[in-house]
Amino acid sequence: MKKFNFEENSHRRFNPLTNSWVLCSPHRTKRPWEGHKEVIDDESLAEYDPECYLCPGNTRAQGDKNPQYENTFIFDNDFAAVKNDQPEYLEQSKDKISSLLRVEGVRGECKVMCFSPKHNITVAEMSEDAILCVIQSWIKIYREMSTKSYINYIQIFENKGSIMGCSNPHPHCQVWCTETIPEEPTKELISMNNYYKNNNSCLLCDYTQLETIKLKYKPRIVCENNSFVCLTPFWAVWPYETMIISKSHIISLLDLENDDDGNILQKDLANIIHRITCKYDNVFECSFPYSMGIHQAPVDNKDHTNDSHLHLHFYPPLLRSPTIKKFLVGYELLAEPQRDLTPEQAADRLRNCSEIHYKQK
Amino acid sequence: MKKFNFEENSHRRFNPLTNSWVLCSPHRTKRPWEGHKEVIDDESLAEYDPECYLCPGNTRAQGDKNPQYENTFIFDNDFAAVKNDQPEYLEQSKDKISSLLRVEGVRGECKVMCFSPKHNITVAEMSEDAILCVIQSWIKIYREMSTKSYINYIQIFENKGSIMGCSNPHPHCQVWCTETIPEEPTKELISMNNYYKNNNSCLLCDYTQLETIKLKYKPRIVCENNSFVCLTPFWAVWPYETMIISKSHIISLLDLENDDDGNILQKDLANIIHRITCKYDNVFECSFPYSMGIHQAPVDNKDHTNDSHLHLHFYPPLLRSPTIKKFLVGYELLAEPQRDLTPEQAADRLRNCSEIHYKQK
Ligand SMILES: O=P(O)(O)O[C@H]1O[C@H](CO)[C@@H](O)[C@H](O)[C@H]1O
Ligand SMILES: O=P(O)(O)O[C@H]1O[C@H](CO)[C@@H](O)[C@H](O)[C@H]1O
Repeated sequence: MKKFNFEENSHRRFNPLTNSWVLCSPHRTKRPWEGHKEVIDDESLAEYDPECYLCPGNTRAQGDKNPQYENTFIFDNDFAAVKNDQPEYLEQSKDKISSLLRVEGVRGECKVMCFSPKHNITVAEMSEDAILCVIQSWIKIYREMSTKSYINYIQIFENKGSIMGCSNPHPHCQVWCTETIPEEPTKELISMNNYYKNNNSCLLCDYTQLETIKLKYKPRIVCENNSFVCLTPFWAVWPYETMIISKSHIISLLDLENDDDGNILQKDLANIIHRITCKYDNVFECSFPYSMGIHQAPVDNKDHTNDSHLHLHFYPPLLRSPTIKKFLVGYELLAEPQRDLTPEQAADRLRNCSEIHYKQK
Repeated sequence: MKKFNFEENSHRRFNPLTNSWVLCSPHRTKRPWEGHKEVIDDESLAEYDPECYLCPGNTRAQGDKNPQYENTFIFDNDFAAVKNDQPEYLEQSKDKISSLLRVEGVRGECKVMCFSPKHNITVAEMSEDAILCVIQSWIKIYREMSTKSYINYIQIFENKGSIMGCSNPHPHCQVWCTETIPEEPTKELISMNNYYKNNNSCLLCDYTQLETIKLKYKPRIVCENNSFVCLTPFWAVWPYETMIISKSHIISLLDLENDDDGNILQKDLANIIHRITCKYDNVFECSFPYSMGIHQAPVDNKDHTNDSHLHLHFYPPLLRSPTIKKFLVGYELLAEPQRDLTPEQAADRLRNCSEIHYKQK
């Protein structure tokens, strides 16, 4: 009888972080694609755009004027999804009816952070020093927002590229701070907490050790340095999905400050972000779109010092070329996420991509 | 103090089917949109396309020739995500390592069903009689596949429109049959089973009664007939997301056959699908893209006769116009789904849309 072959046969893999499955159909990469193709946005941009609401010196939607900033710049989102000045939501009495119509009010604050004054740069082309400035701004805003007693979770994320819903190419991320702990981090915290209870160790510490040390061949490692590893998780959904995980047990951005060795952790994080984003752009020699987000402990972390673990997720949609993305639609939305190439094939491709940006060659 | 206002203030709503939350930020609809716009695909199509692998008489990728079918036509997907002829996956011994690298083999079959020989029609423009033929084909394929002992779940879904990943405009759906019960139906079955244990009644029976009978104002009903209701669920994620739910306790498509009254259920289902898809096209006077899927009991349903309940989900991406969709990206992927207009506002808009297709006016 033929042996089961992970690069040929359909299988599903379990995501222990979100407690869910993903279907992997590797032979499906052979399918020709006759569907929708993205339009490449190769219009070359100027370093300064007088129409951009993120460029230094320009005026924003609500009339505020941006300063002549030199590295990063943080301000309140002019169209915030959550606000701090709203009436309290008072729950109605719970009978059977209201148990099917459950609601919570959500207060919070939404910040925008520009990564650079330059309109026409992306993280992939920024220097490690410039990325270090971004990391230090993340720590700063995290510290500031976590002192507000009503804020319980701080979600930092970047949408890069118009096909990932980014409405302005000026390099920036968002910081949404809420009184509720959102769905995804909650799911992860529950799984990590269960794992800790069962194994008396941290899920992501164990997983990182497994991938970087215990396994003889290291099929999912993309790149690493002393403090961080970047890998395609065994249970990845997006074609070139990666995670950056800290090798030591760090639970939030604030732990990057308590570093004896002169900010080595911060520098190593800048190094690994620099390398993976550069590799991404080199896969198809285009500006590689993605959503990136940082997961960490909730603000009140006393219950999560053992099980929570700082990590970054990159969810890039491209599958075969700058214009052909993977659609997570029908079956994916209604039944189960489905991927074509295996995480090991993706890691292989990324590993072999140069760390020198294609535009600089 | 000002009262909490659901059309102004941010809140989250709980989805009792998937046991998860969605963030609702109604004031955000005021935000101007400067990002990506879709290209309208208004190229007018011919009734027969010699290049289309779904049109009657044409030859498909693997060399098979389609018959001159007159209503629906079912065949094996030439690039199936799951197959029945693959080696069995034998689990390796479970130590701590493999518990983080969990895998299952997935055997199954993927079918494609053409809704009509006409290349240039969509469900929205099909007659109720033609939709009735589709429903009867769904029942037929469901019955056929459910006799195969290794098949445990049958997922019928339609991707409509190129922005929903549909690679061929010829009206069709897919039927993926697997030995595993996929993620989403599993989540729903767990929630419905828990609800049944706690309340001794079916979650979707109770929810349907609440929306159609108990509530004085019926803010989320889009349209209904004797057997089915179409509504925007209280916890909807997509801007114009709807559900079609059977009013009586029906657990799978097979129950549509055991109908004393001469297929009234099948006709009523055709009626409600006809009306909602037509309303959808009328929202922006364009062919409204969506992913649609049918959720029902697993094939072996003896444990789910009380808690499972037949329903259809429609997930349409458009938000403001034929070219502006809602991006479920950054925050949505990494933290929590976020919506702008409320489900009640969406229901209102859909309710007021004509049930005569704009092209027929
Ligand atoms: O098989 P199709 O219709 O070409 O493919 C489409 O639907 C599938 C199931 O939802 C998805 O996995 C694909 O990404 C999508 O393009
Ligand atoms: O606020 P932005 O960047 O304009 O908006 C983008 O990111 C948000 C958060 O992920 C999404 O809700 C929007 O759909 C998307 O277009």
